[in-house]
Amino acid sequence: MVKKIFAFSIRKDEEPYVKEWAKDHPEVEVEYTDELLTPETAAKAKGADGVVVYQQLDYTPETLQALADEGITKMSLRNVGVDNIDMAKAKELGFEITNVPVYSPNAIAEHAAIQTARILRQTKVLDEKIANGDLRWAPTIGREVRDQTVGVIGTGHIGRVYMQIMEGFGAKVIAYDPFENPELKKQGYYVDSLDDLYAQADVVSLHVPATKENFHMIDKDAIAKMKDNVVIVNCSRGALVDTDAVIEGLDSGKIFGFIMDTYEDEVGIFNEDWRDKEFPDKRLKDLIDRSNVLVTPHTAFYTTHAVRNMVLNAFDNNLKLINGEEADTPVKVG
Amino acid sequence: MVKKIFAFSIRKDEEPYVKEWAKDHPEVEVEYTDELLTPETAAKAKGADGVVVYQQLDYTPETLQALADEGITKMSLRNVGVDNIDMAKAKELGFEITNVPVYSPNAIAEHAAIQTARILRQTKVLDEKIANGDLRWAPTIGREVRDQTVGVIGTGHIGRVYMQIMEGFGAKVIAYDPFENPELKKQGYYVDSLDDLYAQADVVSLHVPATKENFHMIDKDAIAKMKDNVVIVNCSRGALVDTDAVIEGLDSGKIFGFIMDTYEDEVGIFNEDWRDKEFPDKRLKDLIDRSNVLVTPHTAFYTTHAVRNMVLNAFDNNLKLINGEEADTPVKVG
Repeated sequence: MVKKIFAFSIRKDEEPYVKEWAKDHPEVEVEYTDELLTPETAAKAKGADGVVVYQQLDYTPETLQALADEGITKMSLRNVGVDNIDMAKAKELGFEITNVPVYSPNAIAEHAAIQTARILRQTKVLDEKIANGDLRWAPTIGREVRDQTVGVIGTGHIGRVYMQIMEGFGAKVIAYDPFENPELKKQGYYVDSLDDLYAQADVVSLHVPATKENFHMIDKDAIAKMKDNVVIVNCSRGALVDTDAVIEGLDSGKIFGFIMDTYEDEVGIFNEDWRDKEFPDKRLKDLIDRSNVLVTPHTAFYTTHAVRNMVLNAFDNNLKLINGEEADTPVKVG
Repeated sequence: MVKKIFAFSIRKDEEPYVKEWAKDHPEVEVEYTDELLTPETAAKAKGADGVVVYQQLDYTPETLQALADEGITKMSLRNVGVDNIDMAKAKELGFEITNVPVYSPNAIAEHAAIQTARILRQTKVLDEKIANGDLRWAPTIGREVRDQTVGVIGTGHIGRVYMQIMEGFGAKVIAYDPFENPELKKQGYYVDSLDDLYAQADVVSLHVPATKENFHMIDKDAIAKMKDNVVIVNCSRGALVDTDAVIEGLDSGKIFGFIMDTYEDEVGIFNEDWRDKEFPDKRLKDLIDRSNVLVTPHTAFYTTHAVRNMVLNAFDNNLKLINGEEADTPVKVG
């Protein structure tokens, strides 16, 4: 019998990859909609053996029940987060669930590298001047990336790609990680402590997961240990940075520039449209408006490469569930 | 007797490097002003053995005469261009002149690389959204640099640094140059023709000097041979690009993005402040306003590294002239 997978809430930028997967799997019938999965829309998947989904909207007991009523209990997320799934109900109904924990480390590393270079070259100041008709170059002078010592905190996959890009620019790269990568250690990248890194680095870039121990690791004390005119880059986790301490460093001129793709108070603010509403966070608005701060709302991951991986991996996972094979990235249900 | 060098029109960003040079040359007396060199200000250099200069303002017969009247005929430019020097008069007065033909190839290569990456990641669109309070990421999706085939036209110093940066990002790099670099040839970078390059490249970046032969080399025909969604990068010379043909390609959607640090009609427009005047070039204004075009007014060179080289090399040259030694980069007078 022909297998069938139904996908919900397929965005325009995901559609080409759904078609690509379907073409590569002629033995599977693929259908999809741009509608979200709700108790009402679940029936659209009727006849499918599994569903592929991705949405901010909760997967409520009612939604899960509606899928189960259609005989569907194999659900593959195209994203990583499973917080919005009612796991108790999912377990009760016998759901099998997968997610996509890694889409494209390069997407984030490239973004961090591009924003680092932009801050050094003062592109935000220059762009604003040009947009307003001021085509004079002085005094908006750039610092070359190759002249910087770049300190990378965290040498996992993302940190390592970031290091490689910075070296392509010709920068000197140093690194700190409590868990040293043997290859990098052999090549002499590691300094002995964060204090050593702060003392040497013109750019400090964070590439570590957030833990209880590193909450606000970039605080007043850490900034005081850094070089004057330091650039701080956080495309990692908002909680790593004491935002008020950074603002103090920006105001005093200690910090040359700040890059944030994450923000400690981002939940409920990022990925929303505030144009016709009162902006909900004065501190964030102040940062957005500064010419030496580059804010992006957690978009570093958002590339065609990443979206393709999210779609293809979710469909791969779902087909394995349907075929009774072990999925690549199963999620614990319950 | 103590030698003395006087420098005119020293900008704030040049001052640290004047001081650096003076400190390294305690045997030379160094004085400077922020004023331009004119027949009236020439007397400020009284007693100096040579002058260091850089200005858009013409070096007229009167200006040169005024310097000669002070016994000064050794003049070192901090920039490359000598078009604004009255060479007949300079010859008549026995002037010896030097310039600084190369400041920092990396400055330009880095700028071209940063702007390339920015266009691919749609940072201009994203920045505008964020400034306006729209923090939604979709549909502003990025293309990763590593997924691109980057075609480099011209493999001199700047082109080669650009290639190295793009490879740091993980891009595939191909190149074309009628004068092939043996090392690059061995490494297999070269394609056989521009047509080959256009057929393969997702990004086409120009790093060649302007000649009669390559005037408007990027024209309608060339663009037609390129891939759909191509990115065109011109941080080289304005005359290389038929601007109307690029606009046609932007309008049709053939061209994904366009980067211009140079413009065929830039003389008299770039490095001026038009905020309180009518903008002098409608076509340029239209390009500046497009979200997939990045215009900079010939600023790619403008880095602390380059300015330092301009200042130090000019002073080095001037001291050699004063000491009767051969200057590093003399200019033909007359």
